[in-house]
Amino acid sequence: MALIVQKYGGTSVGSAERIKNVARRVAGTKDQGHDVVVVVSAMAGETDRLIGLASEVSGHPAGREYDVVLSTGEQVTIGLLALALQDLGYRAKSFTGHQIPILTDSVHSSARIRSIGEKRIRKELAEGTILVVAGFQGVDEEGDITTLGRGGSDTTAVALAAALKADLCEIYTDVEGIFTTDPAICPDARKLEKISYDEMLEMASLGAKVLQTRSVEFAKKYDVPLMVRSSFTEDDGTIVCKEDEEMEKAMVSGITYNKDEAKISVVRVPDRPGIAARLFRPLTEAGINIDMIVQNISHDGHTDLTFTVSKGDYRKALELVRSKASEVEAEDVIGDPDIAKISIVGAGMRSHAGVASRMFETFSREGINIQMISTSEIKISCVVDVKYTELAVRVLHEAFGLGREEVTEEPL
Amino acid sequence: MALIVQKYGGTSVGSAERIKNVARRVAGTKDQGHDVVVVVSAMAGETDRLIGLASEVSGHPAGREYDVVLSTGEQVTIGLLALALQDLGYRAKSFTGHQIPILTDSVHSSARIRSIGEKRIRKELAEGTILVVAGFQGVDEEGDITTLGRGGSDTTAVALAAALKADLCEIYTDVEGIFTTDPAICPDARKLEKISYDEMLEMASLGAKVLQTRSVEFAKKYDVPLMVRSSFTEDDGTIVCKEDEEMEKAMVSGITYNKDEAKISVVRVPDRPGIAARLFRPLTEAGINIDMIVQNISHDGHTDLTFTVSKGDYRKALELVRSKASEVEAEDVIGDPDIAKISIVGAGMRSHAGVASRMFETFSREGINIQMISTSEIKISCVVDVKYTELAVRVLHEAFGLGREEVTEEPL
Repeated sequence: MALIVQKYGGTSVGSAERIKNVARRVAGTKDQGHDVVVVVSAMAGETDRLIGLASEVSGHPAGREYDVVLSTGEQVTIGLLALALQDLGYRAKSFTGHQIPILTDSVHSSARIRSIGEKRIRKELAEGTILVVAGFQGVDEEGDITTLGRGGSDTTAVALAAALKADLCEIYTDVEGIFTTDPAICPDARKLEKISYDEMLEMASLGAKVLQTRSVEFAKKYDVPLMVRSSFTEDDGTIVCKEDEEMEKAMVSGITYNKDEAKISVVRVPDRPGIAARLFRPLTEAGINIDMIVQNISHDGHTDLTFTVSKGDYRKALELVRSKASEVEAEDVIGDPDIAKISIVGAGMRSHAGVASRMFETFSREGINIQMISTSEIKISCVVDVKYTELAVRVLHEAFGLGREEVTEEPL
Repeated sequence: MALIVQKYGGTSVGSAERIKNVARRVAGTKDQGHDVVVVVSAMAGETDRLIGLASEVSGHPAGREYDVVLSTGEQVTIGLLALALQDLGYRAKSFTGHQIPILTDSVHSSARIRSIGEKRIRKELAEGTILVVAGFQGVDEEGDITTLGRGGSDTTAVALAAALKADLCEIYTDVEGIFTTDPAICPDARKLEKISYDEMLEMASLGAKVLQTRSVEFAKKYDVPLMVRSSFTEDDGTIVCKEDEEMEKAMVSGITYNKDEAKISVVRVPDRPGIAARLFRPLTEAGINIDMIVQNISHDGHTDLTFTVSKGDYRKALELVRSKASEVEAEDVIGDPDIAKISIVGAGMRSHAGVASRMFETFSREGINIQMISTSEIKISCVVDVKYTELAVRVLHEAFGLGREEVTEEPL
């Protein structure tokens, strides 16, 4: 007998019929003799409906009251799922964030979990109750309702699993697991059986939008084994866990892409200490996140500094940097929003030489020019012209033998 | 400066636009220097949508989880109204039932209020905050969410006004006040300026569905002055308060009708002690409420017993009484669902003779046969054939001079 936390996303609970389907799945797990805690999101579309209403009554809906409105979405789902489970003859009880309680700080709409009350949960589990907990929401010290930000239900599930030292945290979604790349681009993309937390973090932040980054960090910190799986099939999904021996055999686990960034180059700035700081300070003050930064060696005491920001921040960032350009004596500032970041991720890179050169050679063979390169321990990202996105993903997927047809993996 | 509790029903907050309209009204009251506590219902249609969802996932949606689902309707409205008030530049905060707290018993879906926490409310009012409180919901000792039953928001408002010793409790609705009768039947029906709690209770329970009976009882018990008024006009509504000198001058305040009852007669039962108890026990056990009961003097040791039940219970009641008929040696059981109950209500009846006879003579003149009569201190009800409903209301309204054209009121 294990303790299993299951999380069902908005699509999985998107209608009364689907909620009944989820109830049958939960009941099936209970029938196997496990203790079950279920975390649910708002029904698909519901959060957007509530945001719409809030935007109609207020020019800047935010803060305490916005969270009061948004948190109702999950509350409806927990009540409905508990009713559906009771209808199947199971003992089930719903819990809002304040009933558990899930204590958070007071940063409305992006609150962070501080602690989770175990007592009530343990008592109910001991009585054989299936607990249905509202995702995405918590309560601060004042007793005010808070929300964790979009995708926060994943974090709720992982935090509960960590607090309860659950044996497994299953994240049910509308995809079957984590794939070697986007199946829409590579039809032979393969579902991964296992992936490490670090690889998943690189995948998540690089554009594979299956799991919220924060929830993976949480899972890593507390060593909570996750399984990402579909609520529409019976197949096993992908396990996200600590790196193990077996994993290290695969050099590259997946290829990701991100078309949501834009590139800004500051051309021929004097290579002096403090220049980068002066360029980036206004961006930080404007709340603009910088992703990749590349600076090469200097010539004649001058260097080029290139970085990427999200497309939404592009215009603002370009404007801010241009206003600083003369101050730092840069020759020019050039922007380019038509780029894509293509990345290969794999814990096995650490022990295999030649991964980078295989990536570069593959691009070269196809005539894909690399504009920027950035690497981490388990990831290599290249910025290329956006028009090459699909081609780049496909040729890398093949070059690293990730497809369903096995290819021998030989380090170059 | 006064403390005013305002309650806005589902129609008044039925859209984002209407919520903004309510915000302007609330702000106007605050601008006059008053402390304001606002109680709101779910947006019109929302409770029905939630009931629909619950019915889709469960054969018998009820209990704790049903209340978890239903209570979200009011939670959405409080958040939206607080946002709208903030958007107008006012300090506003929303409160759910458990945040106040509004403590109730644990009878889900028809919980009764036990106590209301004043502390938080006083503190917020002292800081100049407009409080927006969710109607219809409370919390029991376990911390479980409860609801008060349909129309419960009126009760929440009156209970808050009682707890805070508010100067006035305004009930905003989609009608302009309490009328002498249904304006759909009598175009010259007049809005009453004042009415006593007892008259309102008779009006409410007799079919004028403006205020929930329970909330009027509550208001009477704690002497909370109510004003029923429209959220769509600026006109004053009807004050519901303790009986005063002025009121006693009006013999009859209003005419009500109720087409939702059916009549059952047990013919020629032996007039022995215990017969009525034996007949009614199975009805009570089946949860069927009996309204009017009429039993006349006996002949040859036999009597007829006639009573009314709501139309929804009619078939079941008829069946139960028929099964008892031979046991109590009744000659026959006759049912009739095609009836209407027409009532005149007025605190002034106590001091005026002849009210009943004027009613009977008015019916007689129009050829309306009276099937049953029942009276209380301030009310006389007659059961007539349902086809006479509108005619009966109109001729009584005229006979007692209730229309806008004043008629001399002379006791007959």
